[in-house]
Amino acid sequence: MTGTALPDWNDAHAARLRIAPYTHRTPVMISTQLNRLTGASLFFKCENLQRTGSFKARGACNAVFSLDEETAQRGVATHSSGNHGQALSFAAARRGIPAWIVMPETAPAVKRAAVEAYGGQVITCAAGLAAREAALQNILAETGAHLVHPYADAKVIAGQASVSIELIEEVGELDEIVAPIGGGGLISGVALAASQLAPQAKIFAAEPELADDAYRSLAAGRLIEGADAPATVADGLRASLKPMTWHFVRQHVAGVRIASEQQIIEAMQLIWQRMKLIVEPSGAVPLAALLRSPELIRGKRVGIILSGGNVDLERLPWQH
Amino acid sequence: MTGTALPDWNDAHAARLRIAPYTHRTPVMISTQLNRLTGASLFFKCENLQRTGSFKARGACNAVFSLDEETAQRGVATHSSGNHGQALSFAAARRGIPAWIVMPETAPAVKRAAVEAYGGQVITCAAGLAAREAALQNILAETGAHLVHPYADAKVIAGQASVSIELIEEVGELDEIVAPIGGGGLISGVALAASQLAPQAKIFAAEPELADDAYRSLAAGRLIEGADAPATVADGLRASLKPMTWHFVRQHVAGVRIASEQQIIEAMQLIWQRMKLIVEPSGAVPLAALLRSPELIRGKRVGIILSGGNVDLERLPWQH
Repeated sequence: MTGTALPDWNDAHAARLRIAPYTHRTPVMISTQLNRLTGASLFFKCENLQRTGSFKARGACNAVFSLDEETAQRGVATHSSGNHGQALSFAAARRGIPAWIVMPETAPAVKRAAVEAYGGQVITCAAGLAAREAALQNILAETGAHLVHPYADAKVIAGQASVSIELIEEVGELDEIVAPIGGGGLISGVALAASQLAPQAKIFAAEPELADDAYRSLAAGRLIEGADAPATVADGLRASLKPMTWHFVRQHVAGVRIASEQQIIEAMQLIWQRMKLIVEPSGAVPLAALLRSPELIRGKRVGIILSGGNVDLERLPWQH
Repeated sequence: MTGTALPDWNDAHAARLRIAPYTHRTPVMISTQLNRLTGASLFFKCENLQRTGSFKARGACNAVFSLDEETAQRGVATHSSGNHGQALSFAAARRGIPAWIVMPETAPAVKRAAVEAYGGQVITCAAGLAAREAALQNILAETGAHLVHPYADAKVIAGQASVSIELIEEVGELDEIVAPIGGGGLISGVALAASQLAPQAKIFAAEPELADDAYRSLAAGRLIEGADAPATVADGLRASLKPMTWHFVRQHVAGVRIASEQQIIEAMQLIWQRMKLIVEPSGAVPLAALLRSPELIRGKRVGIILSGGNVDLERLPWQH
């Protein structure tokens, strides 16, 4: 397997073993109150409790620890102002190699500080896709670092697959698994493993209405690129599908369920209040989408991926 | 055992079995980052994930399910605008009996709504201790309900003991256990069980500087009443010790560690940010006190009780 070939079950299985020393087997939690509210049995896989605060640590560790020694020594690089940047910095530090993270100068100071706290080196660029790509190409050329894309990378997808491997091992049969979708790395991994381990379980993606490229792609039967920077509060889901993740979505995803901004914020508050768990807006999108149409899951056993918990506590989305 | 005799180990053991069907065995969590910050091995007992959002469900369930059938049918009553009111309402609803909760008219609407959501009946009174006591005596006389005091009650203390029983069963030997102290029901139960199961573990109370009646009592060697309504942000710790809880504190507590308001808020933020757990200010007091003097716990195995997670998300203590 290279970074561009599609990952398969063997890759997912190998990834799970490879990353085990560096990542948490996160707990699965249930909430009597949310079960009552939906009429379903919900199983929340708590990736907000994962190292670096999101599932991204899994894919990043698999990518970093798959590198041969010579490549690894030149370091890794990516562009991300969010969870992937932190995760790659963390993974590289565990291997003792450098990580360069390209971030726009407009990124909040708190995100820059988080990357640096994990040992990553922040490369600042102007805002916008072109400047970001140019800065990344520069750093790759200068350093010879290995690019780890946030989601269109076979090693990254294989790493994310461990989320659903653990979920299925712990709770057994499920009727559905619902994961948030942005670029599609998480859902691709989840679907890859679930199609092997729990083929009867339907995989659903949950997406903000304001960033609905997966919804429109599945409806059209072809990959439709989203807007460059959709304004959804679910800042982890602003990316668009790429051919590698579209492959898994088209093949394995039974449907995309949509949530409005208000529904995302309300679901986030519900998880904070009822489950006492800090989840970021992106991680609340699956519950938001399910609460929009609870009749679809009544009586079912539903796995939900709480994808991350990185929130700026000074700026909560329900406060002005 | 009656409500006024001191509870012993047999009562704690019986309580643990009695409440098991109605309460969660909460998880114990660890945080690599907080271990690094303190130089100790910290084991957080997550009572914020307990039913009703705090450990109070344990004591309330033990009190309610200890009643004989005839007494139970007349219902239970207490005064509490906080976690005990919710917990008693929950326990009574599980037994199918009424609960009357006396609350001052100044209590926030969100607390009143929480009690009512668990099925409790709110009795409103004027603010102040005298009006509260009068309203409670009225409802007891009218209904014949059984009074369940928030902490000066043997059944309540025996129920809280299950917190440290579970903690010690799960993590084994500990050098210290640190629990917040307000009226002292939690620490009395924790000490009662730990002195039996882990006599080598030292028990410490953690207390807000602004409500330091336990600190002053232990220093003086006699029970000193605190102010009527100290202004600490740790709203669960504003009550004062009573003779029943002072008995356990004097006998079993190795010391009281103090935290300032600012330290409590910072510890709360740390738990939210690093552990992704919602904990209320009172539950953050032990970590706050430990971070004030980390040299006291370096290299030690320390159990910490995260006592509750009931927070008004619209009014967080670090926001203005």
